[in-house]
Amino acid sequence: MSYNTFGKIFRFTTWGESHGPAIGCVVDGCPPNIPINETDIQSELNKRKPGQSKFTTQRKEDDKVNILSGVFEGRTTGTPISLIIYNKDMRSRDYETIKNKFRPGHADFTYFKKYGIRDYRGGGRQSARETASRVAAGAIARKVLKLKLGKKFNVVGAVTQLGIMGCNLKNWSDKFISKNNLFCPDKSIIKLWEKYLLNIRKAGSSCGAIIEVRARGIPVGLGAPIYSKLDMDLASAMMSINAVKGVNIGSGMNSAQLTGEQNSDEMIKSKKKIIFETNNAGGILGGISSGQEIVVSFAVKPTSSIITKRKTVDKFGKNTSISVRGRHDPCVGIRAVPIGEAMMNCVLLDHFLMNNAQCKN
Amino acid sequence: MSYNTFGKIFRFTTWGESHGPAIGCVVDGCPPNIPINETDIQSELNKRKPGQSKFTTQRKEDDKVNILSGVFEGRTTGTPISLIIYNKDMRSRDYETIKNKFRPGHADFTYFKKYGIRDYRGGGRQSARETASRVAAGAIARKVLKLKLGKKFNVVGAVTQLGIMGCNLKNWSDKFISKNNLFCPDKSIIKLWEKYLLNIRKAGSSCGAIIEVRARGIPVGLGAPIYSKLDMDLASAMMSINAVKGVNIGSGMNSAQLTGEQNSDEMIKSKKKIIFETNNAGGILGGISSGQEIVVSFAVKPTSSIITKRKTVDKFGKNTSISVRGRHDPCVGIRAVPIGEAMMNCVLLDHFLMNNAQCKN
Amino acid sequence: MSYNTFGKIFRFTTWGESHGPAIGCVVDGCPPNIPINETDIQSELNKRKPGQSKFTTQRKEDDKVNILSGVFEGRTTGTPISLIIYNKDMRSRDYETIKNKFRPGHADFTYFKKYGIRDYRGGGRQSARETASRVAAGAIARKVLKLKLGKKFNVVGAVTQLGIMGCNLKNWSDKFISKNNLFCPDKSIIKLWEKYLLNIRKAGSSCGAIIEVRARGIPVGLGAPIYSKLDMDLASAMMSINAVKGVNIGSGMNSAQLTGEQNSDEMIKSKKKIIFETNNAGGILGGISSGQEIVVSFAVKPTSSIITKRKTVDKFGKNTSISVRGRHDPCVGIRAVPIGEAMMNCVLLDHFLMNNAQCKN
Amino acid sequence: MSYNTFGKIFRFTTWGESHGPAIGCVVDGCPPNIPINETDIQSELNKRKPGQSKFTTQRKEDDKVNILSGVFEGRTTGTPISLIIYNKDMRSRDYETIKNKFRPGHADFTYFKKYGIRDYRGGGRQSARETASRVAAGAIARKVLKLKLGKKFNVVGAVTQLGIMGCNLKNWSDKFISKNNLFCPDKSIIKLWEKYLLNIRKAGSSCGAIIEVRARGIPVGLGAPIYSKLDMDLASAMMSINAVKGVNIGSGMNSAQLTGEQNSDEMIKSKKKIIFETNNAGGILGGISSGQEIVVSFAVKPTSSIITKRKTVDKFGKNTSISVRGRHDPCVGIRAVPIGEAMMNCVLLDHFLMNNAQCKN
Repeated sequence: MSYNTFGKIFRFTTWGESHGPAIGCVVDGCPPNIPINETDIQSELNKRKPGQSKFTTQRKEDDKVNILSGVFEGRTTGTPISLIIYNKDMRSRDYETIKNKFRPGHADFTYFKKYGIRDYRGGGRQSARETASRVAAGAIARKVLKLKLGKKFNVVGAVTQLGIMGCNLKNWSDKFISKNNLFCPDKSIIKLWEKYLLNIRKAGSSCGAIIEVRARGIPVGLGAPIYSKLDMDLASAMMSINAVKGVNIGSGMNSAQLTGEQNSDEMIKSKKKIIFETNNAGGILGGISSGQEIVVSFAVKPTSSIITKRKTVDKFGKNTSISVRGRHDPCVGIRAVPIGEAMMNCVLLDHFLMNNAQCKN
Repeated sequence: MSYNTFGKIFRFTTWGESHGPAIGCVVDGCPPNIPINETDIQSELNKRKPGQSKFTTQRKEDDKVNILSGVFEGRTTGTPISLIIYNKDMRSRDYETIKNKFRPGHADFTYFKKYGIRDYRGGGRQSARETASRVAAGAIARKVLKLKLGKKFNVVGAVTQLGIMGCNLKNWSDKFISKNNLFCPDKSIIKLWEKYLLNIRKAGSSCGAIIEVRARGIPVGLGAPIYSKLDMDLASAMMSINAVKGVNIGSGMNSAQLTGEQNSDEMIKSKKKIIFETNNAGGILGGISSGQEIVVSFAVKPTSSIITKRKTVDKFGKNTSISVRGRHDPCVGIRAVPIGEAMMNCVLLDHFLMNNAQCKN
Repeated sequence: MSYNTFGKIFRFTTWGESHGPAIGCVVDGCPPNIPINETDIQSELNKRKPGQSKFTTQRKEDDKVNILSGVFEGRTTGTPISLIIYNKDMRSRDYETIKNKFRPGHADFTYFKKYGIRDYRGGGRQSARETASRVAAGAIARKVLKLKLGKKFNVVGAVTQLGIMGCNLKNWSDKFISKNNLFCPDKSIIKLWEKYLLNIRKAGSSCGAIIEVRARGIPVGLGAPIYSKLDMDLASAMMSINAVKGVNIGSGMNSAQLTGEQNSDEMIKSKKKIIFETNNAGGILGGISSGQEIVVSFAVKPTSSIITKRKTVDKFGKNTSISVRGRHDPCVGIRAVPIGEAMMNCVLLDHFLMNNAQCKN
Repeated sequence: MSYNTFGKIFRFTTWGESHGPAIGCVVDGCPPNIPINETDIQSELNKRKPGQSKFTTQRKEDDKVNILSGVFEGRTTGTPISLIIYNKDMRSRDYETIKNKFRPGHADFTYFKKYGIRDYRGGGRQSARETASRVAAGAIARKVLKLKLGKKFNVVGAVTQLGIMGCNLKNWSDKFISKNNLFCPDKSIIKLWEKYLLNIRKAGSSCGAIIEVRARGIPVGLGAPIYSKLDMDLASAMMSINAVKGVNIGSGMNSAQLTGEQNSDEMIKSKKKIIFETNNAGGILGGISSGQEIVVSFAVKPTSSIITKRKTVDKFGKNTSISVRGRHDPCVGIRAVPIGEAMMNCVLLDHFLMNNAQCKN
């Protein structure tokens, strides 16, 4: 059972509500003797932090992380690493008006029906604030993988579709992604995207997005058939992110429309290495990494909190309506990029350790 | 860890290779006192069985299931249910020619690199033959759910896209699905689909497909945030099926292109019941079932075994090519329908039991 | 995998080192709507707290617990409950002299060899300080069980052997246990025990102990054969406590010397209830609770930190010796009583929820 | 959850009832490329087989094992190994008379109350026949460990107490154990034991036993604190064996009576190796193996099926009595020796793989 725990060997357990005193996570199973400090984690958290541009919510979350255990004299000891982030800027009064109303598209209704009680302040446990904890865990995973896999290892994510606006994947630039506030990989499209998103924001509306995460330098052999396939765990990881409704590995849903000739990636030996001529498989065959780039994409639905009045029901079963004016992201998908990277890093490290357990001793 | 086990409380462990003496599974955690017999299971297995029409492989697999334990005087006893299916029609010689070659699009290469050994006969463990075991487990799950949830409960799957051919979902008919060999839900399109698929088969080619599985009569409250969300487990379940590369919940990948106004499902109280006016969420909010129909779809890539000569590499690292003439399905997606239903049933029962554990005592 | 997590449905994950900034735990899977507050937990922690009498270490640990999540308006919400206890009175200099020496009977050597690094301050992660976290988790479990099982439910532990001093179990008195500093159940022996222990303390020596924990008001049916037997999980739970080397269920090791006639507990129907005439089984048959009192006892080895000079080796592989003068318990077994109770409460609640999942819906 | 599964990375799932068509298990997580065949497994099963001497039940169980999957051309492939043993000599009529009566000391009552149904034939799932499956799994674990740890590795068990008869552990001889039907390690006592046991058998009575299992050649570092301590998992493993009521690690329950000076094992460097002068710890410190011999002992209660008439209750709640005349072991503890060895082998391999996962990559 793993209500609030993710992973098998490298595991993290998150806790905390949006408007409680703090949120945090416990990272267990981390290899010992890995140099790690709060700065390593903070730099990943800063990517996810709101209030950094006009494209995200103006709510300020400092997201300052503290390490409470598991690190001694700058190195991991193999014991659980406890991370805590104290909550600030909690304007609980913002939420009094929606205390008894179920916001459409949110989990207010289902949490209340399941548990018979819910912390309604800022979404409580269902708030995307929880994702800060996993970005912290992902920072540790990334550090371990870099040490174990070397310089070729890299995980990078981007927004590849912003509402109805696509981009040209052939223009993908890691460098450009890190330099723009929308995590857009294509320099040629960024101006149009910014204009599109500002219009949505001004209208008090919102849009969805597609995020693509790529991992390079991954050895052949990660993933354990049948029921710990690498793509199962990646799909599960991405689907755990708030507002995600679809996941593709490589060609994903589009592979349905291909023929066998178009889809199966041919292999050739070239310069003493086996290479694949295409990558429809997204780097995974039979649930096991093939040594190609691992490519996962996922769809984030549009922010459900919008200014337009929407029909809904309250906790007493009465018909009512709601219009949300709070400080919200016009596209929550943008801040999902570092979260997707974090989940990729955690899944890859978990499978790296699993593979060592069964196959490398 | 769960290499070959799926589920948390209702769990099944599958074993067996395509050309070994038998395949099977052990179903654990099934509630006691459920009437179950081999006929209940056999009827589900027959839906998946190949060789039933000109649209699937002509290989004959009897798929005759035997119950070896866990059922006493026609009822489950709460102890593990062991199911076995003996393999027949194993023409191992068919596979001698591909013993040393890695088939493009298959897991030959990755299994060999991971384990340093592989049973190449008919794909060995990576063969879709393994899915018969889970269809058997799913038959038991369906029986339990029917007893626990009553007559409104129903799980039904269909092919909603066959290669480049779509269908009209408004014409969805459970009855029609059960009457055609392609699990097509739309009577108006079936003739075109048949013609399209026969052409593909004659050409020795193959095509992908999209399968949609719907569950009705599911109570509010199944699914456990954060890391046992119902949609995580459904995505993981569907991604575990051979050749699946993408999974959608409700509007899925398409939700990226919607606005908040279009996407979030409004709620109203009508005739003493809370109902949703649309179902973009696919029946799941915050990882918890909302009482709406649960809608999951997934893409199955085209059969990788095709007649066209393809470049590849052999186990000695030499360049070579391959053309597969064996008895293969032109579209493996078709036979994935009962498998998708089985996985849906297993996940739902698992979450039904989980919910009872924490919330209903 | 569960390095630092205990339990299946009701699960707790502990973290923290003896001399780090804090210790704590995350309790997951707790049923919702249970009234719980810091006072409920604090009262259990106070039982374990050192420095309360001349029979335990004079080190002061306030063990003040804070609830950081999972409780809203005084009730559990079904989400993870994060508990934190800040460390105080950490005299790290006490431990500088043993920084490089492996203390005999302690885990210094094995931690260092396993991980290649260890937090030597106060035993770091291997310190019994970790047990405060589980006493906190156990307080929550006890509260839930009381609500679910009613007034007949009760878990109480006692020291039944103190070094070479036994006691008369026929004199067992819950009330007396709660009134003496040694958790002794037998009023007739307490004076002798006190004298014995003071002598040991004065000599800078130590002694072992046997703790017995009894649970009453437990329904028939908890425990899941074959590999989640109630006695397996209780044995595992007690063996997880620092310094425990043996566990008995009912007659335990002594049952080896009995005959079938002496050992098997006869059953009779009396006043409409099935009762057992004896309880050699300790309330568990075939891994399942029988409705009798559940009786578990375990041995705690003597405190390894003693004043007598002992031969050992340092981390550079050189022969050396050690004499420990710090503030230590003459018998760590005494403070193991609330820990044993906590583990009993956690295991029982876990199995109560498991049984509901499979058998009560 | 793991109702019928044991282990974390090296896992086995057992299934089957005493009088069903077969019993068996699925071994998952076994490293690939290990040479294994049915003879390797059969030789371990033969140690446990009844009907081999006048000291065990005269019931004949051929216990002929078949490998159904996971082994290809004589080597493990890393996929699940399915083992099956068909049941023979099932005289169901022997059990008709006890169909409705709860045998004292057995799990008839608790299974029936928990599940509301039970397979009463020969004890059904609660029968010790299940242990054949784990002896088979243990044979595989032993083979893997031998290959990974080399010639110094060895696991051997013995009966060290037979009812009221002890033995001299200083006379322990592996060779002698393998040559007598009672697994007695002490040649000087065997005649007395045989006489004692024959008397018990003639009287239709039974006695308990203590089994000790020793593992040699185990590296430092196996075991994962806090909640996967090696001694936790060994205690859990031994407690899972039918009729076991107590478990000791090293000095075990006796350590309660020792002083710190007597108990903590001193360490010295000698001939470039760190050695311990005594082994009260049983080779485990802080839950981690120390490199010493690992010593576990456990008590098996006397066979509950005896000829003497015993009071009991039937399933209709009526008082009655029972006298069991079937073919039973006068001391089930004897046949527990190979089972204890099997569980030791499985736990050690599991922790060897776990340790590699976190600490050796």
